[in-house]
Amino acid sequence: MEHCPASVPAALPYYVAFSQVLGLTVVAVTGAWLGVYRGGIAWESSLQFNVHPLCMVIGMIFLQGDALLVYRVFRKEAKRTTKILHGLLHVFAFIIALVGLVAVFDYHKKKAYADLYSLHSWCGILVFVLYFVQWLVGFSFFLFPGASFSLRSRYRPRHIFFGATIFLLSVGTALLGLKEALLFKLGTKYSTFEPEGVLANVLGLLLVCFGVVVLYILAQADWKRPSQAEEQALSMDFKTLTEGDSPSPQ
Amino acid sequence: MEHCPASVPAALPYYVAFSQVLGLTVVAVTGAWLGVYRGGIAWESSLQFNVHPLCMVIGMIFLQGDALLVYRVFRKEAKRTTKILHGLLHVFAFIIALVGLVAVFDYHKKKAYADLYSLHSWCGILVFVLYFVQWLVGFSFFLFPGASFSLRSRYRPRHIFFGATIFLLSVGTALLGLKEALLFKLGTKYSTFEPEGVLANVLGLLLVCFGVVVLYILAQADWKRPSQAEEQALSMDFKTLTEGDSPSPQ
Repeated sequence: MEHCPASVPAALPYYVAFSQVLGLTVVAVTGAWLGVYRGGIAWESSLQFNVHPLCMVIGMIFLQGDALLVYRVFRKEAKRTTKILHGLLHVFAFIIALVGLVAVFDYHKKKAYADLYSLHSWCGILVFVLYFVQWLVGFSFFLFPGASFSLRSRYRPRHIFFGATIFLLSVGTALLGLKEALLFKLGTKYSTFEPEGVLANVLGLLLVCFGVVVLYILAQADWKRPSQAEEQALSMDFKTLTEGDSPSPQ
Repeated sequence: MEHCPASVPAALPYYVAFSQVLGLTVVAVTGAWLGVYRGGIAWESSLQFNVHPLCMVIGMIFLQGDALLVYRVFRKEAKRTTKILHGLLHVFAFIIALVGLVAVFDYHKKKAYADLYSLHSWCGILVFVLYFVQWLVGFSFFLFPGASFSLRSRYRPRHIFFGATIFLLSVGTALLGLKEALLFKLGTKYSTFEPEGVLANVLGLLLVCFGVVVLYILAQADWKRPSQAEEQALSMDFKTLTEGDSPSPQ
């Protein structure tokens, strides 16, 4: 509101820095929880399960959140560069989360545990499929050269809404998984304020805070990436070419 | 986009109707779960616990969600009427949720169970306190006559953001509570696809859907309540009086 569109809003860097501190703390606390109370991480042995929470938190929480912030952080770079970075961060997030999913299914298979019976697993599979579909559709519309300007314009708000929603659902699913892991191991001991329970509760609150701060940054209308002059001109050309409209003075 | 500001956007009534069907289904399925698998509801006896999930779902999910939709549904009524309805729905939601909270604390006391040890309870207390603070601040700014136009304008986007965030946190907290109730009762039987587990998972997905649909309705920029002509004029007068600006032709 108070700044010229080309400059960086004064508070934005502080919020972005805060989100990164929170995100890295979430990853570190997840690692500490698994290391101190769950015996650490390995692919072979029953420690394979622990690969799941760590990979999901790095991929579906931290990297996915950062991918959403790319358009707020890289404001002066060419749109195409920012777009490729956004898409690439989502690819990394997807691959790391896929490793986390393979780990839990493989662990269940080795232990002959049932799959996909819990609310956490139902939400998790739903979110992962939606994430994959959103990436595919986003890639076809925005990075593949075929889509027209008007098609992109109509799809953009939906892409943004579903992107933020999938991120929030990922945070919710992580909370459900954390709770499940706690209750299966601690049972009624959870109510005696066991150190593991308290640490995991703190991790849950940190996950919530990271989700809220990312959402807050995304929700500020005047923190959105301004269109560069040449992009506006290009958009107008596309608009004219694809819709047959003459550029309006508005 | 395609409609004139005074008219109702074509798709809005369908989305609102869908949200109401979902919200009522969530309440009905919660009632069915408690009735069929948990012995029903009573204030005395151990059934007192069941008052908690039902009241929280009615208050913090269904009524809170509907309070957020009031400005989208009542588009042609006077702003003050809409505002009072918004505030009143939140009061009802708050009172019903308070009954739900008293029920669970009273039940814990009678059974000598520990309080506030779980992630669900930490999130729940946090959300409830934030909800109360948001209501108090909202009341002071928007219904109490003291606040200036410029103060209201600056606070409004924050009120909207935190309102939506508190609602989403309420949905997340409900999912954690549902999961806790399931795991405490079913334990490892949860993995055998017990009918109660499946019903509760479906309830969890319905809660998520209600949250997403309400958020979708709130997020559509062109579904926002248009200012009535007399409100715009009044706003301009206030703006001029409080900020000393002359109304700009923009």
